[in-house]
Order: sequence, then structure tokens, then C-alpha cells
Amino acid sequence: MDHSATTPVDSEVLKAMIPYFTEKFGNASSLHTLGQEAHEALDNSRKLISNKINADYSELIFTSGGTESDNFALKGVAYALKDKGNHIITSTIEHPAILNSCKALEEQGYEVTYLKVDEEGFIDLNQLQEEISSNTLLASIMLANNEIGTLQNLEEIGKICRDNNILFHSDAVQGFTKVPIDVQKLNLDLMSLTAHKIHGPKGIGALYINKKVQQTKKIKKLINGGGHEFHWRAGTENVAGIVGFAKAVEIANENHVNHMTKLRDRMINRVLSEIPDSHLNGPNIKTKGSQRLCNNVNISFKYIEGEAMLFRLDMDGISCSTGSACASKSLDPSHVLQAIGLTHEEGLHGSLRFSLGRENTEKEVDYVVDKLINVVKILRELSPLAKQD
Amino acid sequence: MDHSATTPVDSEVLKAMIPYFTEKFGNASSLHTLGQEAHEALDNSRKLISNKINADYSELIFTSGGTESDNFALKGVAYALKDKGNHIITSTIEHPAILNSCKALEEQGYEVTYLKVDEEGFIDLNQLQEEISSNTLLASIMLANNEIGTLQNLEEIGKICRDNNILFHSDAVQGFTKVPIDVQKLNLDLMSLTAHKIHGPKGIGALYINKKVQQTKKIKKLINGGGHEFHWRAGTENVAGIVGFAKAVEIANENHVNHMTKLRDRMINRVLSEIPDSHLNGPNIKTKGSQRLCNNVNISFKYIEGEAMLFRLDMDGISCSTGSACASKSLDPSHVLQAIGLTHEEGLHGSLRFSLGRENTEKEVDYVVDKLINVVKILRELSPLAKQD
Repeated sequence: MDHSATTPVDSEVLKAMIPYFTEKFGNASSLHTLGQEAHEALDNSRKLISNKINADYSELIFTSGGTESDNFALKGVAYALKDKGNHIITSTIEHPAILNSCKALEEQGYEVTYLKVDEEGFIDLNQLQEEISSNTLLASIMLANNEIGTLQNLEEIGKICRDNNILFHSDAVQGFTKVPIDVQKLNLDLMSLTAHKIHGPKGIGALYINKKVQQTKKIKKLINGGGHEFHWRAGTENVAGIVGFAKAVEIANENHVNHMTKLRDRMINRVLSEIPDSHLNGPNIKTKGSQRLCNNVNISFKYIEGEAMLFRLDMDGISCSTGSACASKSLDPSHVLQAIGLTHEEGLHGSLRFSLGRENTEKEVDYVVDKLINVVKILRELSPLAKQD
Repeated sequence: MDHSATTPVDSEVLKAMIPYFTEKFGNASSLHTLGQEAHEALDNSRKLISNKINADYSELIFTSGGTESDNFALKGVAYALKDKGNHIITSTIEHPAILNSCKALEEQGYEVTYLKVDEEGFIDLNQLQEEISSNTLLASIMLANNEIGTLQNLEEIGKICRDNNILFHSDAVQGFTKVPIDVQKLNLDLMSLTAHKIHGPKGIGALYINKKVQQTKKIKKLINGGGHEFHWRAGTENVAGIVGFAKAVEIANENHVNHMTKLRDRMINRVLSEIPDSHLNGPNIKTKGSQRLCNNVNISFKYIEGEAMLFRLDMDGISCSTGSACASKSLDPSHVLQAIGLTHEEGLHGSLRFSLGRENTEKEVDYVVDKLINVVKILRELSPLAKQD
């Protein structure tokens, strides 16, 4: 129940990868047969993934993951266009890879506007429009929020960016393969992807870089060196990882999305109706179900602590999280839950994220809800904050 | 015969990795059991590799590979110490990851001195000493050259850096596990490593960052985001890759080195004595055998082209290279061979690098030499440049 942190590698993905560790182990830059064999695997993987997002083959640059892609996009554009302006727009609920890249840029004199979000996590398109100035280089707005599952309206955001002649980047790490993505239709200039959230391996991702952005050099490399990845990202290609990434993309399908949506709704409905003083964070599934990530369940429970619930559920064999895994080292409450206005009283410290996977079953969801009911009850009995009726 | 480009993953390494793709797939930052299991694997791997180089556990930061580590080291120090100076010293025969990071820094106003090397590829320690000024931040000198196998005297270089109060980085990608490395003894502040040159997987490497450098913040992050890797390198850890990296380090031993040295010497002696107008590039094995990488054979053949030899040998099932794999996309002659003063007449365009592996045999070496004798003969008969006796 923690698939937004990471997923197991699918057995078909692993099967596809294995030969590239052992017999087909060539360096894709080598000129001999072993090298060309690796290069062909790289080519085919790039074609498959770029097709999936309606991009050109040459627009997909492999990286070590979503975090590198986010850094590459933001710093790359900021450095390349520093003579044109110094302003970047993003939102308050982005992933730490975006927020901390922005902080690093602020230290270097760039200005960053963090768009507020409403109580369900949506940015205000009017505010986006208003914040754009002649100094603005780029807007970076995530597709699907990793904590509360809010799906932003990328098509409208893309239009605003295009009409105002600024670049548009999206961290699509959580939404990829769960939400259809057409980079043309969404007017995306840059988009970050990763494999390990979709049953592919860790350590491999990609940055989509629009052809025009490449040709007009509106981005600079983050990692210099050899001429790999059309000269955009140096370093010996992780061929096995790339082959696994492509296989994971190939396997993912709409049936998975429908299945996860059904589980999500069942879980949310049961928890809200069976556990008192519980509250759904992120889009309401009754009014905005299609604008919520298909596998995201984020619920606050008043009077108790998220970590205490997490450890008790772990003892029952249930994995979930309090915020994002990437922020787990921090003791601060979730910046996303703060951004949607959640207060301490409403359960800011008592929230759990369950992120479902295609292999989860209805029976598992019911098991989790049953255990959760019990854990919440026990902890509230111990809590001095809970109302004692 | 192209192990300096990359190596097959050892079967033991793959075996160690597999569980971390499937059942032990947790995100090492997650708080639940699955996450802690991944974290423990990360811990044990870090201990094993840091022990191997006599570093502290906290000094080894995992990255996506040697190229990222090189970028991290050079840019990280340059940006962190920009108020202290703007001068970096390196050599003319470094890997493109170093040279192109230096170029990127030069575009930003930094000054770089490229130390010349002698005809065997050694830098001049006196020149290093002379080039250091109050403005100098860092010297970056590779341990083992990837094309001609020259092993620099890191201990002496380290002393000079320490005595002059500048930082010392080494790209040790090619030398690691083939040459003993003790970061204390060599006075290293930073060192780049990678797994795929030592029968580990592609896409995983490390940067050793000395504790003092960390504590005094003499380096900045290249990749911002979550608090992974002691806050030095963000991004979900590639646990399977890291476990494979550690296993590869564990397996590598002195017997491999002795075996490769024997094959190297046999191959060089046979080629030089049996093929006329052939010339060894890099350290002479008779006078400086211990200062040449144990698996490197780089030979120039007058009157013919390297690529023509490479493709003919490939047809005989032999993989080798003309320069480094990372520079294979470039049509320019090798910058390393130019740096050691090789001229067109001496075979600048007619050079081949054979890099031996632990699994190669004497029989294979003899097969390669026999085929090579034949290929050189055929090509010279076709060459208008060859002397027709």
C-alpha cells in the first residue's frame, strides 16, 4: 500500500533486463557488435517510451531518475536563459526535487514564485496567468501530486504558458502510465519521468526535451562528459535499466488504472464511513474523482499521530507512509498538507498515505481497512487528545 | 578485449541483485519494514565499499556513475569555493567527464590549467607545484588513464596538494580494484568510482567525499531534492545497483590483477615482436610495468586505420576499441594519443586499445594476436601509405 514510494519490479520487466547484465552487456557507445547490440536495445526502448507520450524519438533523454530530471530541467533552463530573465513559477506542493532545485536557484539570484493551491490541491490558473512577467522563463507544475493525488489541468496550464511565451515543465513521475500523456496536446516543453514508480527498476528515468527547446538551446546540460544521449546527458547508458523501463511502460495499461480506481474508491468510502473523525485529503472522489490519481488514498485521523499508526500497521504486514518517502527523513509536517490548509487540530500530524498497486486486491483493501479501524481505535484510547465519550 | 569500455555483470553480482528487484524492493527512505530492509542493504554495501578504500562509512556517496561523480566533484567544489578562487588544475589526458566539466566551468569564468604529460602519459610533479596559486581550489588527476593505462603517482600528487592547501580529486574509475587505494595515504579529498568497469551493473557509482570537506562545506550538491545520501545526493537510491556494486567490489581480488598483468605482458610482447611498425602507447612494461594498468594494451600500427582493424577483428568475434567508448561518437583522433605526442605518421589514426578481463585466457590472447597479425597484414597490403618492399 505504498506504491507511490516505489513498486516491485514486474517479473516480465526483470526477465527483459537479465540478458543485458550478462550476455548482451556491451557499452552502447562501442563500435563493435556487442556495443551495437546494446545500442539497438537503447534505440528500441527510446522509441517505445517516446511513442507512449507522443514525442519524437530524439526528444527522450535518459537520466538516473525523476530527481535528476527535475534538476536538469529547472537548472538547465535557468542557466541557459539567464540573459533573458530570472523568474520561475512553480507550486507550493511540488516534489522536494523541484522545491529544492528552486531553492538552489534562489541562492544564485533567481526569483521563484510558489503558486498557492486550494484545499484540494489545485493551483489557480488565474494566479498563474497573473504571475507571468517578461522576466519569467519557465513554469514547472507537477502532473499528479505524490501525497494527495491531485491531478492538475496540464492542458490549460500549457495553453497559458504557450500564450505567454514561457517554457512549461511538468514532473510527471507519479502520473505517468496512470494518466494519458500527450506532450503535443499538453504543450509540454519538458517532462520528468521515472521507472521505479511503474514496476520498473530504480536508478533510471528520463527527461522529455521538446525538439525546439533542444534546437534553440534553451536548456543546458546538467552532466557534462561524453556524447551520450544526443549530447544532452553524459555517462555510460544504463542499458539494462533502460530496457526494464521500456518494458514497464509497455506492460502498463488501462485495466490497471480501472482496477486501482475501484480499489481507491472502495477504500476511501469504507474508511470515511467507518472511522469517525477521519477526513480525505486531496480531491473529493464524488465530485472530482477523475482529477484524483487512481491509486491515491490520503486520510487524516484526528487526535493521533501518523507514525504511530504506520508502525502498528507495519506489524500487521501493511506498508504505508505518512508523507512521501523522499521527505521521510524530515520531522516537519508534510509541506503538501500544510499547503492545503490542514491544521494540527484537523489531523496534520495524523495523516496516512495509502498508494495502491495493480497487484492489490479487494480482499487486501478490506484487510487494511479492518486493521486500520482497530489501530485508530487503540491509539485514540491511548491519546490524551481524543474526546472521551 | 574491451573491458575498459564495460564488463559483463558477474553471475554472483547478479545473484545478489535479483532479490532487490522483486521481494526486497522497498524504498530505502520508507519507514516500514520493506523500507528498512532496503536501507540495511544500502548500509552494508556502503560499509563494504568504504572499507575497501579505507574511508569512513559516511564518506561514500552513491551516484549514477563515474561521469556524475566527476561533475559533482568539480562543479561542486568550484561553486562552493567561488569566493575563495577560480582556478582548477587537471591534466590533458583526463576522461571527457572531467575535461567537459572543466570546459563548462571555463564558460562560467573559471580558469583551468591542463597539465601536459610526457610520452608515456605521466604528469610532471614540478609543473603541478608551479601552477598552484593562491587562486587554486582543486587539482583533479586521474588514477589510471582509460586509453593508455598510465598510473599517476597519486601519493606524491596528494602531498603537493596538501602542502599547498588545495583540494585533491581523482577519477579512479579505471583503476579501482586493480590498484590498491587508501584515501588516507593518498591524501584524497574526493574520488570518483563506478561499478560497471569491475563486473558490476551500469548506472551506479560513487563519490568519496572526505569528512572534512563535507563538514566545512567545500562542495555543493549537484542534484537537489530529498535528504538521501546524508543530504549530499537526492533521488531514490538504486538499491539493487548498489548491492551489485558492493558485491563486485567484494569479489575483485589480487589474483585477477596478477592474471591480467600476465596476459597484458604476453600480448604486448607478442604484438611488438611479431608485427613490424607497431608501437606501444603508454608506460613501457619493461621499465615501468608497475605504473601501467594491469589490463591495458594500446598499440599503434603505422599506415593503417584503427577503425578498419576494429571492424575486421569484430568479424572474428574480437571486441576492442580505437579510443575510449565515451569518445567513440567523435571523429577526432584521441586527445590522449595527441597529448603524448603521437603523430599521424606514427599511427595516431592506427591505434587500438585492448583492455583485458579476468575471464580472458592465454589462449584467447594468442587467438587475438594471431588474428591481429593477419588483419594488419591485409590492411597494409591495401594501404597506399604502407611501404611496398
